[in-house]
Amino acid sequence: MRKELTRLVEIDRELGLLGHIAALLGWDQETYMPAKAVAERSEQVALIETVAHEKSVSPEIGDLLAALGSTTASPTGAPDGETSEGAPLDARERAYLRVLRRDYDMNTKLPTDLVAELARETSLSQASWIEARAENDFPAFAPHMERMVELKKRQAACLAPGGMPYDALLDLFEPGSTESSIAEIFAGLRGELVSLLAKIAAEPQVDDSFLRRPCPADRQAAISEWLTGIMSYDRGRGRLDVVAHPFTTTLGEDDVRITTRYIEDFFVSSLFSTIHEAGHALYELGIAPGREFARTRLHAAVSMAVHESQSRMWENLIGRSERFWKHNYARLSELAGGGGASSPLDGVGLEAFVRAINKVAPSLIRTEADEVTYGLHIILRFELESELISGRLAVKDLPEAWNAKTEELLGLVPPDDARGCLQDVHWSAGLFGYFPSYALGNLYAAQFWSAMKRDMPDRDDRIESGDLASILGWLRSKIHEEGSIYLPGELVRQVTGTSLDPRHFAAYLDEKYSRIYGF
Amino acid sequence: MRKELTRLVEIDRELGLLGHIAALLGWDQETYMPAKAVAERSEQVALIETVAHEKSVSPEIGDLLAALGSTTASPTGAPDGETSEGAPLDARERAYLRVLRRDYDMNTKLPTDLVAELARETSLSQASWIEARAENDFPAFAPHMERMVELKKRQAACLAPGGMPYDALLDLFEPGSTESSIAEIFAGLRGELVSLLAKIAAEPQVDDSFLRRPCPADRQAAISEWLTGIMSYDRGRGRLDVVAHPFTTTLGEDDVRITTRYIEDFFVSSLFSTIHEAGHALYELGIAPGREFARTRLHAAVSMAVHESQSRMWENLIGRSERFWKHNYARLSELAGGGGASSPLDGVGLEAFVRAINKVAPSLIRTEADEVTYGLHIILRFELESELISGRLAVKDLPEAWNAKTEELLGLVPPDDARGCLQDVHWSAGLFGYFPSYALGNLYAAQFWSAMKRDMPDRDDRIESGDLASILGWLRSKIHEEGSIYLPGELVRQVTGTSLDPRHFAAYLDEKYSRIYGF
Repeated sequence: MRKELTRLVEIDRELGLLGHIAALLGWDQETYMPAKAVAERSEQVALIETVAHEKSVSPEIGDLLAALGSTTASPTGAPDGETSEGAPLDARERAYLRVLRRDYDMNTKLPTDLVAELARETSLSQASWIEARAENDFPAFAPHMERMVELKKRQAACLAPGGMPYDALLDLFEPGSTESSIAEIFAGLRGELVSLLAKIAAEPQVDDSFLRRPCPADRQAAISEWLTGIMSYDRGRGRLDVVAHPFTTTLGEDDVRITTRYIEDFFVSSLFSTIHEAGHALYELGIAPGREFARTRLHAAVSMAVHESQSRMWENLIGRSERFWKHNYARLSELAGGGGASSPLDGVGLEAFVRAINKVAPSLIRTEADEVTYGLHIILRFELESELISGRLAVKDLPEAWNAKTEELLGLVPPDDARGCLQDVHWSAGLFGYFPSYALGNLYAAQFWSAMKRDMPDRDDRIESGDLASILGWLRSKIHEEGSIYLPGELVRQVTGTSLDPRHFAAYLDEKYSRIYGF
Repeated sequence: MRKELTRLVEIDRELGLLGHIAALLGWDQETYMPAKAVAERSEQVALIETVAHEKSVSPEIGDLLAALGSTTASPTGAPDGETSEGAPLDARERAYLRVLRRDYDMNTKLPTDLVAELARETSLSQASWIEARAENDFPAFAPHMERMVELKKRQAACLAPGGMPYDALLDLFEPGSTESSIAEIFAGLRGELVSLLAKIAAEPQVDDSFLRRPCPADRQAAISEWLTGIMSYDRGRGRLDVVAHPFTTTLGEDDVRITTRYIEDFFVSSLFSTIHEAGHALYELGIAPGREFARTRLHAAVSMAVHESQSRMWENLIGRSERFWKHNYARLSELAGGGGASSPLDGVGLEAFVRAINKVAPSLIRTEADEVTYGLHIILRFELESELISGRLAVKDLPEAWNAKTEELLGLVPPDDARGCLQDVHWSAGLFGYFPSYALGNLYAAQFWSAMKRDMPDRDDRIESGDLASILGWLRSKIHEEGSIYLPGELVRQVTGTSLDPRHFAAYLDEKYSRIYGF
C-alpha cells in the first residue's frame, strides 16, 4: 500500500474510534444513564463530535488525497487515483479514495461550531422528546424541534449552497438520491399500496385478537434470546438491552448492540423488533473489507436504505413467512408459555398465527404497521419533513399537518400527538432525510430476495428446514462483506443485474396478500 | 473572574469531559461490553487518553498560568497568583491555580506515547487479569504485569527524574506522601494491629457461621437497593450494577455509578461492598465548589485516601456499628428473607449479628478482611509493590513473595494465586501506589469520626434513631463540598484541628474490640 494511503488509513481509524466512542455515549444515554446526567452528556457528545470533526477536516487529508490523484473536481464515480504518480491503485484502493473524498468534501463544508451545536442539541432534544411523548406534550418539545430544523437547514445550506436543502440531507443517508427521484418512486409505490389496500379491504378480515393476550417480559426476553440465536447473532460481539425505542448501534468492530422493548399485551412487537434489529446487526458484523481496510470507512454499510433492506428482509420476508414458522412455530409457542404457564398461542394453529402476523389494517403507529400500510407511513413523513426543511411548514403547525395527512393516507385521525407526530425518535435525533430509507429498504430487500432465489432455487425449502445459515451466507458474500466499496446503485446492479426496480416489491406483496386474503 | 482564569476553566472543563468519557469506556468494559470487543476498546481508551493528554499539555495553559503569576518555581503550597499584575485572586482562585499547576507540571513531564501505551495496556491487562484469576493462571497474566511494571517505572522516571520511583507513584494518589512517610505510619500501625490480634486470639471466638447461609442474588439486590436509599444515594444521579470486582466511577457531574457483586453464600459481602461504594459516591456527588468552578479540577476529591475515608466510614464506623443495626436490623432480616421465604438471619438476634459482622480472624482475601487484619493486607501490598517498582522483586517471583509475606503477616498460606497475588484488580489496572490509600483512609476516617463527635455530641443517638442525614450533612459541609481546595494534610487540620494522627484509629479499634471480645 502506498505510504499516503497508509497514513490515510491511520487517520481514518482514529476517526472510526471516535465514532464508536460517540456511539457508546448514545447507547448509554438510551439504556442505562441516570436521568439527571443528560445535560453533561450532551456536552460530552458535542466534544467528541468536535474533536472528530476537527480531525476529519485536517488539511493533511486533503494533501494526501491530492497526492493520490483524488481532487474535489473528480465526479463521485470517477476512478480516483489514476492520475497520481506513484504505483497504480487497485480497485479497492480507488473505492476507498472515493469514500474518503466524499466525506472530506462534505466535512470541510461544515463549520465546527455547527457540528458541536448539532451534537449537543441532538442529545438534549432526544431527552426532551422522551418526556414530551410520555406526557403527550408537543408544545414542550416544539422549541427543540424548531432549533433542530434550523440547525438542519444550516447544515444543508453548508453542504449544498444554492441547492435544494432537503436533497442535501437525503444524500447523507442514501448517496445520490434526491427529493424528486424519491418522489417519483413513492408516487408509483403509493398507487400500488392504495390499490392493494382496497383489494384487501374487500375480503373477509383476519383475526389477530390472540396476539393481544398477555405475555410477560421475561418470556418475551426468552423469545428474543432464542431468535437472535437461530439468526447466528454472536453474543460475544453484541448484546440485547431494553429501551423505549429500539435501535442498533455499532460501538466497535466486534461490538454491535441491539435493543428491544417488551409490550406485555402485544408480544409480537418485541419479536419482530428483535429480528429487525438483529438483521441490522448481522449486516454490521458481516462487513469484512479485508485486513488493510478493517476499521476504515470502507468498513461500513453502503447506505441506510441498504441497511434497512437487511433488517426488513429478516423481519418481513423471512420472519413473517409461512416457511419460517413451519419450522419454528412449535418452539415459539412453547417459549411464549414458559415454564408450563399458559401461552398466548394456546389453541392457535400455525396458519392462524401466520395470517395474524400478516394482518393488514391501517393503523396509527409506524413501527407496528403491516407491510402494505408501512409505505404510506413513510410517504407521510417524507412529505412532511420535506415541507419542514423547505420552510413550507412551520413546526407549530406540524401536529395539524400530521393529522390531516394521516387521515388522507390512512383514513385515521390520531387521538393525540403521542400517537401522531411525537411517535418517532428521528426528528428529535436530527435524522431528517432518513425516513425514505425505510421504504427504499423494502424495495431493495424484495429485489435482493429475487436475486437470492435465482442463485439458490431451493432457498424456501432451506428456510422451512431451519437452515438460516445459507441465507446469511448469501447475504454476507453478496452484500455484507463488501462494506462501502460500491455506491447503493452499483451494489444493486452488481447483486441483481439491474438498477433499483420497485416491481419486485409490488410483485412480492401481491403474491403474498392474494394468498392470505384469497383474491 | 479574570479572563485568563475564565479561559483556564474552559480548557479544564473540556479535560473533565474527556475524563468522564474515558470513565464511561471503563465502566462499560466492566459491566456490559461484549467479550470480543476488548481489543478495540483498548484502542478507544488510548485515543481518549491521548487527546486528553495533548490538551492537558498545551502551551496555552502554561502561558495562562504564568500570566496569573503561577510558575513552576512556586512550591506546591505557595499562594499562587500573588505576583501577577491583574486584579488580586481570591483564596479559591489561588487554590485552583495550585491544582492546575500541579497537574500541568505533572502532565508536561509525560510523553504522549507513554500515556497512550498505559491506557491501552491497562485495558488489555485488566481483561487478561479477569481470565487469569478465573483460571488461577498467574503465568498467563505475568507478561501483562511485567509490561505494566515497566510502564509504571517509565512513568515514575518521567515524573520524578532521579527521585525514588515509588514515591512518584504514591504522590499521584496522596499528594505529598512518600514511601518513607508511609512506612513510618505503617510500622506503628503494624505493631498496634499485631498486638490487638493477639489479645483477640486469646478470647473465645465469635460464631459467624450463619452469615454463610444462602441468600439469593435478588434478595441481596433488594438489600442493596434499600441501603443506598437510606444513605440518600440519588438514583437520578447514579445507578448500581453487578460486576466481578466492585468499584465506583464518575461519568459526569450528575452521574456517579456504583457496582457490587452477589455471593450467594455470603450475603454480607454485597451488603458492605454496596455501603462502601455508596460512601464513595456520596463524596463525589457532594462536591460543590461553586458555580464558577463546577466541572473543573476543583470539582474533585482531595485524594484517594480521603476518598477511602468516606467509603470506609460508611462501611465500618457506621455500617458495622451496633447503633446503626439497632435501627435497621429488623428490616434487613425481613429483606434477606424476601416474600416470606426463609432468611439467613432467622433466629439470629441483633447482638449475634453485630458480633458476627465484626468477627476478627486472619483471612486470605483483602476485600473480605475484618477491620483489624485489613491493615496487614495493605502493608503486604505496600511492601511488595514498592519492591516491584524498585526492581528488587521480579514479577515472576511475585507469587512466592506474596505467599511468604501472607504467612509472615497473617499466618496463612494461600492455596492458589487466585486467592493470592491475583485477587486484586489494582496492579492489572496500573494502580501501583493506590493500596496505601485504603489504610490511610481508615486513619483519616477515625480522625474525622472523632471530630464529628466533637461537633455533634448526640451523633450516636442520631444514628440509632435512623437519622443518617445529619451524618451526611456534616460530611458534606466539612469535607465533600470543598472539593480539591485543600491538600489532604490541610483538610485534616481544617476539619479536626491537628495533622493526621493514627491514634484515633488505634483508640477506635481498641474500644470496639475490647467490647466485642471482652478483654
